Amino acid sequence: MSRIYNFSAGPCTLPLPVLEAARDQFVDYENTGMSLVEMSHRSKTVDGVHCRALELMRELLSVPESHEILFLGGGATFQFSMIPLNLLRGGGKADYTNSGAWAKKAIADAAKVGEVNVVFDGSDEKFTTLPDPGKVEASAGSLYLHLTSNETIGGIQWKSFPDVDVPIVADMSSEILSRPIPFEKFGIVYAGAQKNIGPAGVAVVIIRRDILDRCSDDLPAYLDYRKHLEANSMLNTPPVFQIWMIKLVLEWLRELGGVTWAQQMADRRSGLLYETIDKHDGFYRCPVDRGIRSPMNVVWRCPSEDLEARFIAEADRQGLSGLKGHRSVGGCRASIYNAMPVEGAEALARFMDQFAAANG
Amino acid sequence: MSRIYNFSAGPCTLPLPVLEAARDQFVDYENTGMSLVEMSHRSKTVDGVHCRALELMRELLSVPESHEILFLGGGATFQFSMIPLNLLRGGGKADYTNSGAWAKKAIADAAKVGEVNVVFDGSDEKFTTLPDPGKVEASAGSLYLHLTSNETIGGIQWKSFPDVDVPIVADMSSEILSRPIPFEKFGIVYAGAQKNIGPAGVAVVIIRRDILDRCSDDLPAYLDYRKHLEANSMLNTPPVFQIWMIKLVLEWLRELGGVTWAQQMADRRSGLLYETIDKHDGFYRCPVDRGIRSPMNVVWRCPSEDLEARFIAEADRQGLSGLKGHRSVGGCRASIYNAMPVEGAEALARFMDQFAAANG
Repeated sequence: MSRIYNFSAGPCTLPLPVLEAARDQFVDYENTGMSLVEMSHRSKTVDGVHCRALELMRELLSVPESHEILFLGGGATFQFSMIPLNLLRGGGKADYTNSGAWAKKAIADAAKVGEVNVVFDGSDEKFTTLPDPGKVEASAGSLYLHLTSNETIGGIQWKSFPDVDVPIVADMSSEILSRPIPFEKFGIVYAGAQKNIGPAGVAVVIIRRDILDRCSDDLPAYLDYRKHLEANSMLNTPPVFQIWMIKLVLEWLRELGGVTWAQQMADRRSGLLYETIDKHDGFYRCPVDRGIRSPMNVVWRCPSEDLEARFIAEADRQGLSGLKGHRSVGGCRASIYNAMPVEGAEALARFMDQFAAANG
Repeated sequence: MSRIYNFSAGPCTLPLPVLEAARDQFVDYENTGMSLVEMSHRSKTVDGVHCRALELMRELLSVPESHEILFLGGGATFQFSMIPLNLLRGGGKADYTNSGAWAKKAIADAAKVGEVNVVFDGSDEKFTTLPDPGKVEASAGSLYLHLTSNETIGGIQWKSFPDVDVPIVADMSSEILSRPIPFEKFGIVYAGAQKNIGPAGVAVVIIRRDILDRCSDDLPAYLDYRKHLEANSMLNTPPVFQIWMIKLVLEWLRELGGVTWAQQMADRRSGLLYETIDKHDGFYRCPVDRGIRSPMNVVWRCPSEDLEARFIAEADRQGLSGLKGHRSVGGCRASIYNAMPVEGAEALARFMDQFAAANG
């Protein structure tokens, strides 16, 4: 079997050179006589990989000195808990935007810990819209504003961010490393690895150090950002495999041109797919407002659910895998993260043309 | 470089056939055209691996139907938080035994959440002792008794467990799968994977379902065992790589004879090393009471710290790696988990003989 184009929403396709490099070193890492995943996390070798991954993340995202970077187990879902536990502990209010399934989960978790004020709710419009960032305001007494910068399921993206008096806390899981981040606006940027960073099982959390000043001391260690920061992400044994893979992915990205390159490629891939959808208007239909379409997750409908099922099955037979929309919304979805070659989007666009011609 | 014997305390040596199998399937898993770590965690393939790993864990440990099994990110350290948050929430008291560095961390975290009663404290004896299990009693109103069944740093192991009215909650990180577990005594058995189960980045948590009845509903999702149980460990994207490796490790163990075989091998490896230490009494010295010596982590001292440093360095040059004791206690330590071949212990024993003869 040859390599196929995998449009899954995450876990998702990883760069082939990264997979091959990991495979080649998997049993005997750099002639140490053991695998990297067998080594003590306190060894120079593992520490070197960990520090290099942190360093590359800082360089590629231009993370300013005001912000610290952590790799934490548990994924972005665990961050839905950690954020309010650290920032709203002992009573406190935060503003949340409800832009889709992921935002909703973040809201539900924060509401278990503190007071949540929903400043935007896209549920009536089935999460196909976002507010004008210029019109979003933080409420009085709010400690932060939470947003999901790209909704994987709905295929929508904040193109710019609100100017508010409070730090923004953003779930960037499905878009991190695909465009520059204006860190001056952000208190916390977090992302599960399994889209643009590496395999599932770790989250990157980028924190402006001073927003932790008001944290209470009553959190058990693993839930306390400050404890992780003091230990430089090594409070306990970290997920070494994932951190190794992150290092390899970031080296690959750096070599190709970093975030600038990633953004150009994302525009090419997504531009091609949106163009194809719009060209076949009446057959394909993208439910998302043009101004907020995601460059990472392209969603569309066919004229009927039957045709959608056929589209997905036929594409799969042609080596275009994972095109089924999320079960909560149906339809079709192509997730085209950094590691998806432009050729993958081209192959999909050609198939979309053929399928529309044959069934239109 | 040929493969060396790695005596690290965890992460630690993994079975070579497991590493080789993972390497061979790493880029293209079973001819699917992609890596397993690129696949959707909702795919049949990943779900199959996950379910098989759970099934093997149940079979190999003879986990009764009363208990559920979870794979959770964050390691055993995260469980130090989750356990009191789930069991002591809203006020409640638990008994803890302080048998070493790991128990101490579990106690510190539980004390942030509820009332902790320390029923045994080995700190005065530098954690070289354990209580007589028959004499341990739960205090009035206690909800559970926590113990660390094997202390990785001190090299001590509970050989049997207290008969108490409350469920025992046990950190079995550094010994799980090396002897049978009398589950009827246990409310929760948990273990970080990176010793006997697989690579770092996941913990196995085995829970008697009924002890969750009194959990409150005010926990954010990721912190709530019930949410993970409802989702069969797939509340969010799990650490797929680790779960795949667990499946491979458990298949390897099953093939060789399961926990019965593991216990026999552990006795042979540790028997040989303790015999060697005792044979050179006056040169080597094991600080641990004979009745509670760990079959997984063998600790000993040389006549001086200088000789210890030379021992560790010379052993390393002979391909016997990771023999330095934990920085908090010094000395030497050989961690000899399931994946350590008996030949590794034999090679170490020979080296110990030679070193004692040359320096005694």
